[in-house]
Amino acid sequence: MRISIEKSVTALNDSVAAELRRQWRARQLFCLNIMAAPGAGKTALIEATIARLQDRFRIVVVEGDPHASLDRDRIRASGAVSVQVNTLAGCHLDARMIQNALKTVDLTGVDLLILENVGNLLCPAAWDLGEDVRVVVSSLPEGADKPFKYPETFLLAHVMVINKIDLEPFLPVTAAELRHNALRVNPQLQVFEVSCLTGDGMVEWCTWLKEQAAARKER
Amino acid sequence: MRISIEKSVTALNDSVAAELRRQWRARQLFCLNIMAAPGAGKTALIEATIARLQDRFRIVVVEGDPHASLDRDRIRASGAVSVQVNTLAGCHLDARMIQNALKTVDLTGVDLLILENVGNLLCPAAWDLGEDVRVVVSSLPEGADKPFKYPETFLLAHVMVINKIDLEPFLPVTAAELRHNALRVNPQLQVFEVSCLTGDGMVEWCTWLKEQAAARKER
Repeated sequence: MRISIEKSVTALNDSVAAELRRQWRARQLFCLNIMAAPGAGKTALIEATIARLQDRFRIVVVEGDPHASLDRDRIRASGAVSVQVNTLAGCHLDARMIQNALKTVDLTGVDLLILENVGNLLCPAAWDLGEDVRVVVSSLPEGADKPFKYPETFLLAHVMVINKIDLEPFLPVTAAELRHNALRVNPQLQVFEVSCLTGDGMVEWCTWLKEQAAARKER
Repeated sequence: MRISIEKSVTALNDSVAAELRRQWRARQLFCLNIMAAPGAGKTALIEATIARLQDRFRIVVVEGDPHASLDRDRIRASGAVSVQVNTLAGCHLDARMIQNALKTVDLTGVDLLILENVGNLLCPAAWDLGEDVRVVVSSLPEGADKPFKYPETFLLAHVMVINKIDLEPFLPVTAAELRHNALRVNPQLQVFEVSCLTGDGMVEWCTWLKEQAAARKER
């Protein structure tokens, strides 16, 4: 499978992203860019992560949605600092949006910055936001064929979180199939299987995240 | 809530769509444009619809995906004529793609043309494909807040099909909530609740579709 991404379109974006990455690394801040289809559970994953890590980490979340600030309000209710970016007709976040959104946020002492992208399995893939790690959340009810239909996102991700595994007994698809298909597209993917509803798999995910953020401090 | 869609961008598209609509109406052909997030069950809905209507209707399906032709193969296996459009980096179908895809398809005697858009709750909304009816499929595991986050798609749709209602007992959300929220965004929406897996609700959906296609013949 051959994927080409138009680099000229994103050249300005890439320079802003590189500057953000430089600033964040100087602060020893670890940054995730979380991508997924609408309703895969990105916000639920962030809420469940905050609940488990906020006694140890200072966390800031940028929420991207075309409209509304429902997700920012959910994240604030869970205890972290959150800002909302409304992209309106825009189908992805870009580095300038992140730069603007964070102008009013004090990042002193922040350990973990989570960027929740617009719900979209295609458009966000080409846009570097300055993150350390790209995470694709793929929920099991979406089926096992998404890596083949939207390969850019899976190919450019470092981590896949399979969410809603509690529903597996009621679905015509298994987490093993989805994992297998994603690894065919990108054999380097690190895969976690979780249910944000039941908490299954959250220990493994949060342990990995703590290790990544700690490694950032040591560099 | 105020939604503005940039009309100049889509002006050329609209003229191609108008021409397609004129041709299809002359053939007494009824056309659906089906939009949804990835994994909501658009293809499953089309398969289940073909299974129930193919002894009465001639059906043609255009499948839109960034990559792969898995959906075309599924639809062909269910007995209908199907062509695949791969949009690559493109996040929606447009009228020119439909015009090109149908060049090799004989529409003589075809009653129902189904256009399955790219899995994306935002980008397809602004692009007229010449359809009679726009359908948004919203699957219950995606949650009940999608109409507020992606209002363009719900506002411009005529029909919402809530899919995967068989999962309701295992989800933190109800079909009634999703219906309520969608109707707040667009009170004119006609709503069907189905499970393509169990067949629940398919009689109501197919009865409505038969009536619509029959009304096209009488005009």
